[in-house]
This record gives sequence, structure tokens and C-alpha cells, in this order.
Amino acid sequence: MAYNLAPLQNLIDQFERMQGIGNKTAQRMAFYVLSLSEEEANNFAKAITDAHTKIKQCKICCDLAEDELCPVCKDKSRDRSVICVVEDPRDVVAIERTHEYNGMYHVLHGAISPMDNIGPDQIRIKELIARLGDGVCEEIIMATNPTVEGEATAMYISRLLKPMGITVSRLAYGVPVGADLEYADEVTLTRAIKGRSLI
Amino acid sequence: MAYNLAPLQNLIDQFERMQGIGNKTAQRMAFYVLSLSEEEANNFAKAITDAHTKIKQCKICCDLAEDELCPVCKDKSRDRSVICVVEDPRDVVAIERTHEYNGMYHVLHGAISPMDNIGPDQIRIKELIARLGDGVCEEIIMATNPTVEGEATAMYISRLLKPMGITVSRLAYGVPVGADLEYADEVTLTRAIKGRSLI
Repeated sequence: MAYNLAPLQNLIDQFERMQGIGNKTAQRMAFYVLSLSEEEANNFAKAITDAHTKIKQCKICCDLAEDELCPVCKDKSRDRSVICVVEDPRDVVAIERTHEYNGMYHVLHGAISPMDNIGPDQIRIKELIARLGDGVCEEIIMATNPTVEGEATAMYISRLLKPMGITVSRLAYGVPVGADLEYADEVTLTRAIKGRSLI
Repeated sequence: MAYNLAPLQNLIDQFERMQGIGNKTAQRMAFYVLSLSEEEANNFAKAITDAHTKIKQCKICCDLAEDELCPVCKDKSRDRSVICVVEDPRDVVAIERTHEYNGMYHVLHGAISPMDNIGPDQIRIKELIARLGDGVCEEIIMATNPTVEGEATAMYISRLLKPMGITVSRLAYGVPVGADLEYADEVTLTRAIKGRSLI
């Protein structure tokens, strides 16, 4: 005999498929759903289908968008001479949260990773090159993750762009603000020393 | 400007409402939904509404059921002279997993907790008393949680049942099998010593 009823088990399985969600958490989530009112459960289900059908990719920067263009690409007040290249839509959210950047974005949706069979054609590099044809952009800030894959992607793109006469920069490496120096790893510390600035 | 698109933010909010799910996890879950194919997303949404509409409460034991009766109450081979009283449908699953218990269940859907405004009338005690009218049941095993609320509920129910001439027992307390004695708390150890048995 199965311990759980089929519809309940199905729901648990759905939650368990998510990364980082184990069986116990999935079970707890499924019971949470059962505890909802009918209207709340319907809203929850609708939120899932809605997010899926309403959210597309921006035609210009490949970020998530409800319309043809994302809010940043629509915004006429933003500086079109700088494009910040990130791996993931969540990185755009993180940078926007600083309120310090007023340029454009380009979302690659991944990084080059031969181990996972992800080459330059599997991420949105073609779309980035196509955007640069109009000559408006003067600088590309590579804000891919500070991992082997992110580095490789940044290098690959910078080599593609150099012949086009576009400045390519990279986010600064160093010790995170508020962190304890004692716990910084050697590579980060080495980078922080190399990249030191005058005060 | 909101950092996230409305449908995405709505989905994140839905996930975040679950107990134990923080903002980062909710965000990760929402992005997981976006990464699904349309069919998968629809199946996910359907699993939520299905679980909600198809699962009701068993008319006898108040456990979750797809039909009028739950699988245990339907099963003619189970021993109707013993009823195990638990707080939550998940506890039934846990006990069933032992393959050692062949009696019936009764799910209270909570425990008496004056702090949370849950009195005897808010949990399924009336339903339990109603079941006992036929005189088939001879023993009630109180398997509520070993917490203050679980204890209070067990005590309350045992006092109600004593005049009816029904034996009321309680799950044994002691050190969990496989655990390290060193880490057992004092109350558990005291109970384990008191409840010691001859070998």
C-alpha cells in the first residue's frame, strides 16, 4: 500500500523535483497546499501558469519581460552606451538593487561550460553581438560570476569584441564588504591585493 | 521600479508564504517554474488544484482520503479493536511505515493549545467519541506528539474515555534508536530510565 494518496504523492513529487528541496520539505509544502482555502489554492496554481505564459524574453537584452521589451530596455532615461553582461536574470535584480548602475543589460542565460555541454552557441552571445551593430554601445562590463565558467565566458566575449573597438571591463574582485578578512580565501585575497587602490 | 515582473513576483510571494521558505528559496523555486516546459508547468499547477479538490477527510477517522473512506478504514483485514490517535495525517504515514501496526487510526488535526486558541472543539475529538459508541474499540493508543500540547491533549482525551471503560495507552518515551546517549536531553533520559524494561 502506498502511504500517501495519489494526488498528494503527485504534488509532493512536483515539489521534490525542485533543486534543494528534499522529501520532508516537499511533504511539508504539499500539506501547506492542502491547508489552503480553495480560492488560495487556485490562486497558487494560477500564479504558476501565469508566470509561465506571461513572462517572455526581452527582444533586445534577453532579460525576462512581460512585453516585447523589458522595463530597462523600455526606459528612455538609461545610458545606452554601457551594457552590463550577466549570466542570469537574477543578477540583473541584484545589480538594480544597488541603485548605482544606469546602463543597459544583456542576459546570457548561462555561461560557457564544456563539462555541461554548454558552448558559446547555447547562451545568448549571438544576440549580444547583434545589438552592438548600431555603434551606440561604447563599453561592455562583464559581470559574469567569478567562477571558472564565468571567467571563461568573459574572456571569450572580450576576445570577440576587441576587434570591434569596444572597451570591455570586468567587475572588481576583492574582499566582500563587511566580511572578515580572516575567512577570505587565498585567491580572493591575492586578487584584492593586486587590485588595491590609493586612499 | 519593482525589480521583478509582476507575475514573477506574485509566484515568489506564493512560495514565500510557505512555512520555512525564505525569499531566496522562493526566488529559486519561481525560476525553476520558469525553466519548465509549458506542459510541465501546467501539470504542476494541476497537481495543486487536484490535491486540493480530490483530497477530502475520511468520514470515520478524519485522515485524508480520496473517497468517503480512507484506505485504512476501507481495509477489512485491520484490527478494529485498537485506535491510534495522532495529531496529523503525516503521523499516520510515519506509523504505517513501521509495518508493525494493524489497528485503526484517528486524526485529530491538531492538539489542544490554549496559546493558539485551539480548544477541544477545534480538533476532531467529538468525532472520536462518536466512533466509540458501537463498542467495537477496546483500546486507544495516544500517539500525539511528546510536546506540552500533545501531552495535554492525551490527558484530556484519556479523562473523557476512562468512564467509558476503554483502555487508554500512550506511546513509550525513551532514547531514540541509533541516537547518541550523550546528546539525549535530561527529560528524555529521565523518562527512559523510568520506563526501563528487563532484558
